[in-house]
Amino acid sequence: MKNVVVRHIPSTPPELVEKLRSLGVATVHEAMGRIGLMRPVMRPLIEGMQMAGRAVTVLSTPGDNWMIHVACEVCSPGDVLVVAATSETTDGMVGDLLVTLMRAKQISGLILDAGCRDVRQIRAMKFPVWSKAISAQGTVKATPGSVNVPVVCAGASVTPGDIIVADDDGVVVVPHGVAAEIAIAAQQRCDREEVARLRMASGGPALGASAPMLQRLAEMGLVWIDKDAIVE
Amino acid sequence: MKNVVVRHIPSTPPELVEKLRSLGVATVHEAMGRIGLMRPVMRPLIEGMQMAGRAVTVLSTPGDNWMIHVACEVCSPGDVLVVAATSETTDGMVGDLLVTLMRAKQISGLILDAGCRDVRQIRAMKFPVWSKAISAQGTVKATPGSVNVPVVCAGASVTPGDIIVADDDGVVVVPHGVAAEIAIAAQQRCDREEVARLRMASGGPALGASAPMLQRLAEMGLVWIDKDAIVE
Amino acid sequence: MKNVVVRHIPSTPPELVEKLRSLGVATVHEAMGRIGLMRPVMRPLIEGMQMAGRAVTVLSTPGDNWMIHVACEVCSPGDVLVVAATSETTDGMVGDLLVTLMRAKQISGLILDAGCRDVRQIRAMKFPVWSKAISAQGTVKATPGSVNVPVVCAGASVTPGDIIVADDDGVVVVPHGVAAEIAIAAQQRCDREEVARLRMASGGPALGASAPMLQRLAEMGLVWIDKDAIVE
Amino acid sequence: MKNVVVRHIPSTPPELVEKLRSLGVATVHEAMGRIGLMRPVMRPLIEGMQMAGRAVTVLSTPGDNWMIHVACEVCSPGDVLVVAATSETTDGMVGDLLVTLMRAKQISGLILDAGCRDVRQIRAMKFPVWSKAISAQGTVKATPGSVNVPVVCAGASVTPGDIIVADDDGVVVVPHGVAAEIAIAAQQRCDREEVARLRMASGGPALGASAPMLQRLAEMGLVWIDKDAIVE
Amino acid sequence: MKNVVVRHIPSTPPELVEKLRSLGVATVHEAMGRIGLMRPVMRPLIEGMQMAGRAVTVLSTPGDNWMIHVACEVCSPGDVLVVAATSETTDGMVGDLLVTLMRAKQISGLILDAGCRDVRQIRAMKFPVWSKAISAQGTVKATPGSVNVPVVCAGASVTPGDIIVADDDGVVVVPHGVAAEIAIAAQQRCDREEVARLRMASGGPALGASAPMLQRLAEMGLVWIDKDAIVE
Amino acid sequence: MKNVVVRHIPSTPPELVEKLRSLGVATVHEAMGRIGLMRPVMRPLIEGMQMAGRAVTVLSTPGDNWMIHVACEVCSPGDVLVVAATSETTDGMVGDLLVTLMRAKQISGLILDAGCRDVRQIRAMKFPVWSKAISAQGTVKATPGSVNVPVVCAGASVTPGDIIVADDDGVVVVPHGVAAEIAIAAQQRCDREEVARLRMASGGPALGASAPMLQRLAEMGLVWIDKDAIVE
Repeated sequence: MKNVVVRHIPSTPPELVEKLRSLGVATVHEAMGRIGLMRPVMRPLIEGMQMAGRAVTVLSTPGDNWMIHVACEVCSPGDVLVVAATSETTDGMVGDLLVTLMRAKQISGLILDAGCRDVRQIRAMKFPVWSKAISAQGTVKATPGSVNVPVVCAGASVTPGDIIVADDDGVVVVPHGVAAEIAIAAQQRCDREEVARLRMASGGPALGASAPMLQRLAEMGLVWIDKDAIVE
Repeated sequence: MKNVVVRHIPSTPPELVEKLRSLGVATVHEAMGRIGLMRPVMRPLIEGMQMAGRAVTVLSTPGDNWMIHVACEVCSPGDVLVVAATSETTDGMVGDLLVTLMRAKQISGLILDAGCRDVRQIRAMKFPVWSKAISAQGTVKATPGSVNVPVVCAGASVTPGDIIVADDDGVVVVPHGVAAEIAIAAQQRCDREEVARLRMASGGPALGASAPMLQRLAEMGLVWIDKDAIVE
Repeated sequence: MKNVVVRHIPSTPPELVEKLRSLGVATVHEAMGRIGLMRPVMRPLIEGMQMAGRAVTVLSTPGDNWMIHVACEVCSPGDVLVVAATSETTDGMVGDLLVTLMRAKQISGLILDAGCRDVRQIRAMKFPVWSKAISAQGTVKATPGSVNVPVVCAGASVTPGDIIVADDDGVVVVPHGVAAEIAIAAQQRCDREEVARLRMASGGPALGASAPMLQRLAEMGLVWIDKDAIVE
Repeated sequence: MKNVVVRHIPSTPPELVEKLRSLGVATVHEAMGRIGLMRPVMRPLIEGMQMAGRAVTVLSTPGDNWMIHVACEVCSPGDVLVVAATSETTDGMVGDLLVTLMRAKQISGLILDAGCRDVRQIRAMKFPVWSKAISAQGTVKATPGSVNVPVVCAGASVTPGDIIVADDDGVVVVPHGVAAEIAIAAQQRCDREEVARLRMASGGPALGASAPMLQRLAEMGLVWIDKDAIVE
Repeated sequence: MKNVVVRHIPSTPPELVEKLRSLGVATVHEAMGRIGLMRPVMRPLIEGMQMAGRAVTVLSTPGDNWMIHVACEVCSPGDVLVVAATSETTDGMVGDLLVTLMRAKQISGLILDAGCRDVRQIRAMKFPVWSKAISAQGTVKATPGSVNVPVVCAGASVTPGDIIVADDDGVVVVPHGVAAEIAIAAQQRCDREEVARLRMASGGPALGASAPMLQRLAEMGLVWIDKDAIVE
Repeated sequence: MKNVVVRHIPSTPPELVEKLRSLGVATVHEAMGRIGLMRPVMRPLIEGMQMAGRAVTVLSTPGDNWMIHVACEVCSPGDVLVVAATSETTDGMVGDLLVTLMRAKQISGLILDAGCRDVRQIRAMKFPVWSKAISAQGTVKATPGSVNVPVVCAGASVTPGDIIVADDDGVVVVPHGVAAEIAIAAQQRCDREEVARLRMASGGPALGASAPMLQRLAEMGLVWIDKDAIVE
């Protein structure tokens, strides 16, 4: 289990990344079969951001941000830094200096299973960050970790080269090999939802309250009562 | 313990609901004798919203939003959907499609002891939602629950027909039978606070630092010391 | 262990307080040697605030805000109220009435290891509050505590007269006796960061990825791999 | 919303209480239709205890155990004290003195949505307690609450006179009016489980892996693969 | 992203599994380079258990234990069931009936990123279970998931066929391909620790307080002071 | 803010330490005026332990146990190691090797605001440990901290030389300067409780339900009702 930095990782065509970005986390996550979502503790620093890009992964020890510095050296424009720690931490592993560097390197965004600091400055720079905490607690540069190895970040498995999609709804991971297939399925879902949205806007019924669904609920024993509840 | 949907629940005059809404959560909660408040994990999706309405309750299994669809069928304009799950969940039980339907049905707002998704879209629609999480995690429509039975939502007991009042301070439940009485008590408190606010704006003293209160504190042993603390 | 109110506490020159305020939490905390930070649950009620002032401490029993009223009587303009409770609580210990009084007394801000309420009104008043919760839950005035004794607030030790610095990154405590020394060290760090920022803006390398640092990582066994990761 | 102490509450025949006790929490909870369970933070102080009894409810302010003292005055032998607080607390509201009194009054057990203290002594007395924390933090006797009003305790609604069943699996509330019906349904479930247990002990299949269930899974799209997973 | 059940997964020689079991979680985890550990919320139901076996993975929707039933059909003697859910849950997904089946099938143990119930009975059966909660809350059999696909369980990535090692210190995952290598490294560490233990038993110094380490600390600026601390 | 190791700290007569130990956490904490208690997350590794001793404090960075090694060098027989980290961590900072050393040095116990590992072995050695987690996650020896400086441990302020008292109820800190005074007050409380215990054992009334207390409750508006609750 040596500490390594892997320089080359698979790429995905930019149009496909952009497609996933525009479809958004909720729709992509549905198309994935409802897997690959990071835990909801991951929140955006700035409301309204919609981001996607290729995952460059970082595995750090808690309280140590050395490998984030190293990872910046192997990032290409459009990449997303995905930082995992070997144990739970909320320390502020990234501040405005590192974000200045990320911006200079045209990194698309940062996913941080830890804390973030200098948030006023980062918000002013409009750099997209999702993290589980805001904390001024600084970190050391003392212990090696790895870059571009598979990691678990906020409960989701990330392989270098996967596509990260993030917006106000959270962060989802699309495995590199299925990105195209997921984009198609997500678009189809999106189209179906347009139809459903029209029905909803006209007052429904909702899918789960359609005639066949109500029939199935009745078979499962659901009873409609026309007066006040005398139900425990 | 059958699964039921109860169609008819008690109503409260709109002026009374509006009165409670304008008084706000903190004041109404005080008038209630400091009971009926949901846990502070319940946060509004949009800052500055002030909402009130009649509770239509939903009891769902975790990870299943079927009964929310059903509940929309029995809502009247002005109602508030109150969703409880039989165990802890942060899954995104409601997204923009259901909110589109709720808006079409003139539902006043949504109280969700779970997660919410499509939040960018919901914010754009300015639909009032209080939830304990934001999560893209979707849900199934597989297991029946009930609509308009008494539930515990985020630690507060809600009977169908109760009045829900929600704003930036949280969510409070006013039992149907005491709504008028509470509105009066809350207004009285509000009036008293106006007087107190003038005193505060002039530099006090605060109620707890008034002469009789300081006297009582002295009797309870409070000591004033005029130099630096040499106190452990 | 009597309950006491201490009237007089050490002061710090306003320019020094202002200096620490403008340097900000992250930089001051680094200059402190990374100690003195409150836990990251402490969040500002209003984004973008930058505040500093002399700590007037309050030790309350949970669910009781009596001593906050008393503390207001011993505050001077520019002070910061630091409220600790003898056990964990999220109750709304301060509302708009007390904030109106604090404003009248030119108190600089409020640090509350508990909850805050009437937040819409407090935001409208632009009064700086850091707390760990928002909650309408009211409190009683029944049990004495102390004012201006040493307390632990949100995990940080605070002695009356210490300087509190707070912004979007959190809250840090600078002991009274070292405020000048810390301000100097923080300014030096700030200057060094300006140089580093220029390097970052030009694409780095980051400090941790500078030649000597990479050399040290190599000595610690870090390996660079030029193809796809076949690393478990 | 006056503070009250209600002296008389409905009773349930001891044999029925005993029946529910012996059936246990998991089975009773299933028979209830999977509602009425307190949150899993409620843990027994002593492993292996199985307890049931009539609920005498207490509503306290946080950090104040006065009403528990009062509630002891209205308990009858076999009752279970159910203590709820108006906001979250882990303070040690009950210690060995109160437990000595509860034992003298032949109270069956204590359900405490708060903390417990003197636990070595209570364990030595083998008095059954379920609580969400162990904490030495003492409480005051300063603010009235109520006894024998409906409360929400650890997420479950409790009406005075309900039957509390508690064991290593947690705590469940059986409404007074349906205790007999639930006991019958639970016994039936118990009997069915005996049959299932024999099948399990012989190697299954489990209910969910029976032929009809596997057929249904296949219809829902589940695929069986005979070689190593090449599945994302 | 179809739901699948994979029948055949890689095996590891029983001696190697037994070797890892006897070395224990803490030592194996160190030999792994401090990765692969599940989050510390995973606790054993029974103190003192030491378990290891091949991972059969289950991916379930929250509140649904159907796929655990299915997974039992593809387990071999000695296997360990590793249950992950697509979102956070503490529901009691396994009770004594399923454990009876697991015992009949000679399954070695159960790792449950959810809750467990019927714990008195399971303890009596001495079946090894690690879970993050105890909860009577039952689950449905309504929605398919997968068996023997890669999962994230309690923060650790698990591929079917990996070796699970669990004891009082927690749960660690050893990838199938490196099990032999890890066993060797762990044994070496174990041997080195024997030497260190003798030194410790004689009063040290501890490794971190050995002469070279103290020298390095001095170079890093650590100062020894011979009188009482006058340090802030 | 240099990193320092302070060699000499104040002592307390062993009889006084023993007195506090035998009085126990709950009683000592009451005598302290209900301050000085660590947060209830601190739990003993072994049930039934009762420990007291002089605090030797350690301030570490998260994920780094170097300074615990150093601290062992300045401990005297009977001391208690109190380990605080500069940010939240559950990593296993102490295992059986360090405990072997602590035992050899006749250290009385360990208070760890972090995790502990090798717990089966430590339990077998019957060494008293209070920690907030059990975790196999190992730590590095890379970054200096301090020994015998004031720290905040699990929410309580600890000055080197303070007396730590710990048992099943938690951990309390008695400042060095007031140890004698607290022992006397605690003993008095203990004596008073003996009298109260006799009254409790005879069926009460509890203190809070004595005639004067009930009178005061009546004055505060508490109402007794003789029939079933019709109270909302």
